Amino acid sequence: MSLFDQIVKPTLLLDTRKAQLNIEKMALKARAQNIRFRPHFKTHLSNTIGNWFRACDVTSITVSSVDMALYFAKNGWKDILIAFPVNWRQIQTIQHLADIVKLGLIVESSDTIKLLAQHLHSPVDVWIKIDVGNKRTGVDWENTALVQQLATEIRAFSHLRLAGVLTHAGHTYHATSKSEIVEIYNESVERINTTRKDLLPITLTPVEVSVGDTPGCSVAESLGPVDEIRPGNFIFYDAQQLIAGSCSFEDIAVSVACPVVAKHPDRNEIIIYGGAIHLSKDTIEVNGKNYFGLVSLPEQNGWQPPLENAFVTRLSQEHGMIKMTPEDFSRVNIGDLLCVTPAHSCLTVQALRYYLTLDGEWISTFDSTGLG
Amino acid sequence: MSLFDQIVKPTLLLDTRKAQLNIEKMALKARAQNIRFRPHFKTHLSNTIGNWFRACDVTSITVSSVDMALYFAKNGWKDILIAFPVNWRQIQTIQHLADIVKLGLIVESSDTIKLLAQHLHSPVDVWIKIDVGNKRTGVDWENTALVQQLATEIRAFSHLRLAGVLTHAGHTYHATSKSEIVEIYNESVERINTTRKDLLPITLTPVEVSVGDTPGCSVAESLGPVDEIRPGNFIFYDAQQLIAGSCSFEDIAVSVACPVVAKHPDRNEIIIYGGAIHLSKDTIEVNGKNYFGLVSLPEQNGWQPPLENAFVTRLSQEHGMIKMTPEDFSRVNIGDLLCVTPAHSCLTVQALRYYLTLDGEWISTFDSTGLG
Repeated sequence: MSLFDQIVKPTLLLDTRKAQLNIEKMALKARAQNIRFRPHFKTHLSNTIGNWFRACDVTSITVSSVDMALYFAKNGWKDILIAFPVNWRQIQTIQHLADIVKLGLIVESSDTIKLLAQHLHSPVDVWIKIDVGNKRTGVDWENTALVQQLATEIRAFSHLRLAGVLTHAGHTYHATSKSEIVEIYNESVERINTTRKDLLPITLTPVEVSVGDTPGCSVAESLGPVDEIRPGNFIFYDAQQLIAGSCSFEDIAVSVACPVVAKHPDRNEIIIYGGAIHLSKDTIEVNGKNYFGLVSLPEQNGWQPPLENAFVTRLSQEHGMIKMTPEDFSRVNIGDLLCVTPAHSCLTVQALRYYLTLDGEWISTFDSTGLG
Repeated sequence: MSLFDQIVKPTLLLDTRKAQLNIEKMALKARAQNIRFRPHFKTHLSNTIGNWFRACDVTSITVSSVDMALYFAKNGWKDILIAFPVNWRQIQTIQHLADIVKLGLIVESSDTIKLLAQHLHSPVDVWIKIDVGNKRTGVDWENTALVQQLATEIRAFSHLRLAGVLTHAGHTYHATSKSEIVEIYNESVERINTTRKDLLPITLTPVEVSVGDTPGCSVAESLGPVDEIRPGNFIFYDAQQLIAGSCSFEDIAVSVACPVVAKHPDRNEIIIYGGAIHLSKDTIEVNGKNYFGLVSLPEQNGWQPPLENAFVTRLSQEHGMIKMTPEDFSRVNIGDLLCVTPAHSCLTVQALRYYLTLDGEWISTFDSTGLG
């Protein structure tokens, strides 16, 4: 039985060779520039895949929730940074993690520093989250007074070790060209280095700088004066990254195989079993229109390059609607599979929760849902 | 310990009283008009909640996948309609279901009828899917020749019973007023009755008509000449339904409790632990802008009415960003919970997979992910 014969419902295909190559390339780039590689594991969410990073000598990782930290700690990871504002309601679990691993936390307020000082008794690394222009979280990079204040407060407690300043230049995700990505990346690095310098009167020796968005780390040849990078999405990439210019189609390591369940010859539309609960409702923008994914035909060892002018145009809970050219439409039959490159692979992994490798092996992930 | 004290991460709150009231109201409306109530279970996805429908004498249900049919069949449901185009790749499981329940399937092509004729040996109810204007799937209601052809083909096989014509007027979801909903609903019912009439030369006696969208079934006083309704979302409703006019805020039975993890006083923005993987990226449109949810403060027995001018404006994987007025901003502290009314409850249930009732009871759902 071929790989595709066994697929009966929307299935997340993983090309392990491509994913491992993406890991190796990023690890090599960091090593060559003497920068710590602390990959973000929120994209793949899997112990099995985590081990592929170990093979590239990775020992430090990033996660985006306390539960995710616990999952990877149980698999033997000893140096874990939770790159998400401290969730006060999980302070007991955070304390437990601080007991068993070298734990990194990010802070952006005095209140959170006070909480950590009061409730933690084991040492933790504390990073001050800096906003270099993404406008999601963090202290504005120009707010020198606040950054200095937070650094002083952290240093007042012996179990809080001021590790450095950290940023996520998430605005590179909306770039539309390699040059724009590099421009934003370089500006971010410059800005956070200004913050590092602003802290010198307090820290005397420079603290570390941590950055890490997939577009910047993928495209910038020189990663600049930083101590660690934390990209995550690069292991798989996706249609958003392709359009931003972070990768080529050949680098994309995942695709969702979806059964064709209906055809509408009057409008060259195909209905797949594959909806919002499989692909997520994240989008790509092409020529001013929003789509949910690119469409490829399956082939012996994976999937072909995307069909031109074929897009997932609409999603409901379980249905996906694909518009394609009359020529391609006539080549597709009910019962066939189409491979959809998702807009945003992180969300698709989270939704589907299992990978099927091109060698026919199933890989499970961390289940973030559950009680309490 | 209060209900809210035990919540440490994004948690789907369920007001069972409101949900049960929504069920009772819809069951009563159908019964009063002598219409079969075949609720869609893709919204709540739960055996426990399914039992609440049994208490209202519901015996027929709708689902949106073969696996979901299997889940509810195992819980004793004996009359199940899979309101999704037949997935050829699951024909063996469909045959198994046909053996154990009164199974309904929808078709829209000769190819699928041939497949069913060849591969099924147990009797099934076959509904012809009609498109009354939603333009997702189904035979155009004006394509009399094709509908007649499909009916003739179905009737040629003794184990395929032509049950009737079925539609989903999903375009009511984009309505913005009650009168617009009623207009679309009535037009849909009129159109599908035209199709029923078109089939009379073949069927001699009228076949059944099945309709079912939450806006139409909620708002239309008279459900018109139909034999069954299949609404699903009405059990919980959500922000999309509120804006469409299908419900009042007090009818909405779910809300996602999210911990506040950061505050940005310079822009009155609050960061919650609650992102795309919890709420889904579905949106509501308010004054031309897209938002991911409404925001309420928690209260003793649930949540308050939504704060005015407070919206979830941005979502990343785990973060939600909320913009609010300076007055409300000053009332919220890090560590607090905010209750988010999701844009689309069906997708939120699917993402979070567990409910916490206001009485502190956890309710699990069908897990659609998994191997093979």
